[in-house]
Amino acid sequence: MPRILAIDLGGTRMRAGAFEGNLLAYEVLQTEVEKGPEDIIRRLIEASHRVLKKVGWDKIDGIGMAVPGPIDRKAKTINSPPNMPGWDNIPIGAIFEEEFSAPSFIDNDANAAALGEAIYGAGEGASVVCYFTVSTGIGGGCVIKGHIFHGAGDNAAEFGHQKLDPFGPPCGCGRRGCLEALASGTAIARRAKELLLHNPQSLLLQLVRGDIERVTAKLVAQAAAQGDALSLRVFQEAGFWLGLGIANIINLFNPKVVVLGGGVINAGELILKPARETALQKAIPQLASIVEIVPAKLGEYPGLYGAGEVALQGLRGELDTI
Amino acid sequence: MPRILAIDLGGTRMRAGAFEGNLLAYEVLQTEVEKGPEDIIRRLIEASHRVLKKVGWDKIDGIGMAVPGPIDRKAKTINSPPNMPGWDNIPIGAIFEEEFSAPSFIDNDANAAALGEAIYGAGEGASVVCYFTVSTGIGGGCVIKGHIFHGAGDNAAEFGHQKLDPFGPPCGCGRRGCLEALASGTAIARRAKELLLHNPQSLLLQLVRGDIERVTAKLVAQAAAQGDALSLRVFQEAGFWLGLGIANIINLFNPKVVVLGGGVINAGELILKPARETALQKAIPQLASIVEIVPAKLGEYPGLYGAGEVALQGLRGELDTI
Repeated sequence: MPRILAIDLGGTRMRAGAFEGNLLAYEVLQTEVEKGPEDIIRRLIEASHRVLKKVGWDKIDGIGMAVPGPIDRKAKTINSPPNMPGWDNIPIGAIFEEEFSAPSFIDNDANAAALGEAIYGAGEGASVVCYFTVSTGIGGGCVIKGHIFHGAGDNAAEFGHQKLDPFGPPCGCGRRGCLEALASGTAIARRAKELLLHNPQSLLLQLVRGDIERVTAKLVAQAAAQGDALSLRVFQEAGFWLGLGIANIINLFNPKVVVLGGGVINAGELILKPARETALQKAIPQLASIVEIVPAKLGEYPGLYGAGEVALQGLRGELDTI
Repeated sequence: MPRILAIDLGGTRMRAGAFEGNLLAYEVLQTEVEKGPEDIIRRLIEASHRVLKKVGWDKIDGIGMAVPGPIDRKAKTINSPPNMPGWDNIPIGAIFEEEFSAPSFIDNDANAAALGEAIYGAGEGASVVCYFTVSTGIGGGCVIKGHIFHGAGDNAAEFGHQKLDPFGPPCGCGRRGCLEALASGTAIARRAKELLLHNPQSLLLQLVRGDIERVTAKLVAQAAAQGDALSLRVFQEAGFWLGLGIANIINLFNPKVVVLGGGVINAGELILKPARETALQKAIPQLASIVEIVPAKLGEYPGLYGAGEVALQGLRGELDTI
């Protein structure tokens, strides 16, 4: 089995791991995005050296990287992700190749996480796996027979930007009624704030000590867990929309497994129950009957596993199978 | 090049063709679905013999078949399509294999048409092609790198059953607001009838001689072509919803080409213009910028071309690549 340096670069945290079909060791760092690419890359390289030292590898066969999009997979560059100011056309692949004397292979974070869960996590063994990451925004990835489906322009599986309601709330993409505008962490916080204006007695308002601007999806989940009616309603609604989005993905991709990951899914059955119920009720019965809708299994590390697998497939020349 | 007998069995018409990477000869028959499987298959076999005689083939290498779903591709059976009463578990593949002493390969009509257009028609040369057939209902097919994407259970690409409006009109599938319930021929006729109740002066009502039950999508298109305001509005609305559905498919599959076929598309710019405008405006700009949205090119024969290609890929052992 080839020895892989796996990298998962995110806007909040970044990780380096030693991967050999399994994660042998890893390190997690705060990205501190405000420090800019040079400082971040230096710290990520230092962490990588420490991890490789820990497992006693003085040579690696390949580097796999999960990074925020948009990217250029061929040029191995990061091209101005919205949440990473200063990362304009950064040749992250070339930098790591020079440092570690091994070929690199990169993909965007949602695709890599989808691949990680499809091969090593909740989708293991399934022929078609669709992965949702429900967090600040909603991303997606589709893995067909063990390979990431990239589409004609490397941008397939934008699950968060399916339109579910033409007159729905505005989305960060400039349009209306996208799944992301209805069920992401941002949408959950926004909807809770709207409802708080007319429900000053809600427990949620106590949790933020009356300062409505401090409402987050995490606090809404906390209040809901304590039985707050407003917060329960917000999750019920978000779960409905997420379920409708999953139903569409079932009807379009006919997956064996739908994997749900990302911070919002940590709310557990609060969102999973309405999402599952709606998805199975709205999808075509024949397609609904073969699908499992499950939470992600790899916790904080689907990106690292996926990055490792991207490198394994890259070394085997399989990255453009689909 | 192998010599293929190509079969396209539809609820209204059926076709047999001699295919060799091109359609050398073919025959078209009325299906007369009320006559039942035995009679229909007999006439289709007779037509096949006539076509093979016409091109002077006394032996063929394979049989490709495009048939209404649901089907079992492995067993090569047709399993109770809603519009073909009596076709319960009919072993269409085995019947033709015995008659023509060649291996058969079958797929459903929308997938076959998608493959035909992707390889020989409007999608020629593109890496990802999404095909909509807009007719009584709305079907779909997705071709990735020259191969049909089947999904985990052979039912992927149900483009007509994406939900676009949770409070929209009821769909034949038992749910609400599916694309099929908003932009199919059936939906166009239904919407025109609704509007006629309040617009008795419409030209459309003259075209049906006052009998609202005789309204069809074709007549709505005729009235619209003559400037009838109500009918123009109906196509504008249907085009909007079709465009929204196309936008979702662009964001999910990132296709190079979206091909629009089926009877409703014969209305031309009446529906194409609003559909194209909405799709390009609602899809993510980066994905919209690489896609072409074009009418189908193979006229009445995408199914025959697709059936021929299914057999070619079957003989090469490529049917389950994706």
